[in-house]
Amino acid sequence: MRYLKAKIAYDGSCYHGFQRQNNAIAVQQVIEDTICELTGEEVTVNGCSRTDTGVHAREFFLSFKMENPIHCEGFLRAVNNLLPDDIAFLSVEECDESFHARYDCKGKEYEYLLFNSRAKDPFLKNKAYRYTYPLDEKLLDKAAKQFIGKHDFKSFCSADCTKENTVRTITDFSVSRNGDMVSFKVSADGFLYNMVRILVGTLLYVNEGKLTCEQIAELFDKKDRTKAGVTVPPQGLYLNRVFY
Amino acid sequence: MRYLKAKIAYDGSCYHGFQRQNNAIAVQQVIEDTICELTGEEVTVNGCSRTDTGVHAREFFLSFKMENPIHCEGFLRAVNNLLPDDIAFLSVEECDESFHARYDCKGKEYEYLLFNSRAKDPFLKNKAYRYTYPLDEKLLDKAAKQFIGKHDFKSFCSADCTKENTVRTITDFSVSRNGDMVSFKVSADGFLYNMVRILVGTLLYVNEGKLTCEQIAELFDKKDRTKAGVTVPPQGLYLNRVFY
Repeated sequence: MRYLKAKIAYDGSCYHGFQRQNNAIAVQQVIEDTICELTGEEVTVNGCSRTDTGVHAREFFLSFKMENPIHCEGFLRAVNNLLPDDIAFLSVEECDESFHARYDCKGKEYEYLLFNSRAKDPFLKNKAYRYTYPLDEKLLDKAAKQFIGKHDFKSFCSADCTKENTVRTITDFSVSRNGDMVSFKVSADGFLYNMVRILVGTLLYVNEGKLTCEQIAELFDKKDRTKAGVTVPPQGLYLNRVFY
Repeated sequence: MRYLKAKIAYDGSCYHGFQRQNNAIAVQQVIEDTICELTGEEVTVNGCSRTDTGVHAREFFLSFKMENPIHCEGFLRAVNNLLPDDIAFLSVEECDESFHARYDCKGKEYEYLLFNSRAKDPFLKNKAYRYTYPLDEKLLDKAAKQFIGKHDFKSFCSADCTKENTVRTITDFSVSRNGDMVSFKVSADGFLYNMVRILVGTLLYVNEGKLTCEQIAELFDKKDRTKAGVTVPPQGLYLNRVFY
């Protein structure tokens, strides 16, 4: 038996997230079916993360077992030729039997892209969230720093979140602008369900004067999802980097 | 009655071209239905061009008549809010009754994007054609110059082309590289059915040693579609500029 580690990327527009679903197409299913088509083996790939419907990954890791002796380079080329255009294997290598893409993950960086313009760009469909009000990226960068550190993020995860432990450590959070595109980059040791999208929505509340920078700190103690900002749409969200 | 000229842009991935079809969704239909939803009027929009299924437009002009007195600025905002994310109105203005987006068009510039890499980029799905062989953009730029001038492009249009007159004047044609992305830009007073995609396919024949620069000139006289290169896929093609 071989143990493999793969780095992949995908445009999530057409998929119901990474994890296999009973009644919708997910990235995991497409990859497993493609490997089976190539090798005849029914393989289960372990992903480094779940992602929501419509969320993208610029870097995402898989671990899986396979019998087939095909060279990593040949496997990479063949699987990319068989996969649809919106899922790509970037690299494949042999790894230690003990490696697990999810359990060994030490942290992740997400980027949220917001197109801050009254004009409409049809080529950003499914790629960025259009926000037409004026946005003060310097204020939001200052506000984002309030989230850095070890906190209970109970107020900043979906009410459907089933995790008992909602304490996470955000190691970096910055907001910057490049022309009309505003980027929110956040790194942490782990993220709760919808957490990045609620953090960005909460910063938009600060932009709109519904919350002050100081009030953000108070939200940790409230442990109440309804006090934080809205959950912004998924299409602007990219899993950017995964740390091991 | 008001006469209006609109500049629009669209990502053609989801549409069967611009022109209204009986049994498939085209950009024209979506725009006419949206204007009807907004104003209650059944409007016919005249487009500057047909585009093929999957082809994009960064700039495309419409002319149409409308009774509704809504201000151009208000119309622009409202129609953009109602249209899907992949079709955008960029500007709307009153125009002369005599203006017709297609008949008054003096020429167009198309760009074809080719992603020249063995790596796969999932975010280029429907946005560029991936070509994995080495490509010599300097050679192809030199070859592209052979097409400039007034020629009979009978060899370079689809066999389904119904135009009697296949003489067109190419005013500029250049090939350049930016990293892994190769851009083919061609301007002419008019284009025949599939012409840009066949011109690019013919340049790829030059890249692959199937044709020399000198043999391109001979193809004009042959007036035989089968002597030119393949028709490259539509997803890399952008209507870039329209001249009046």
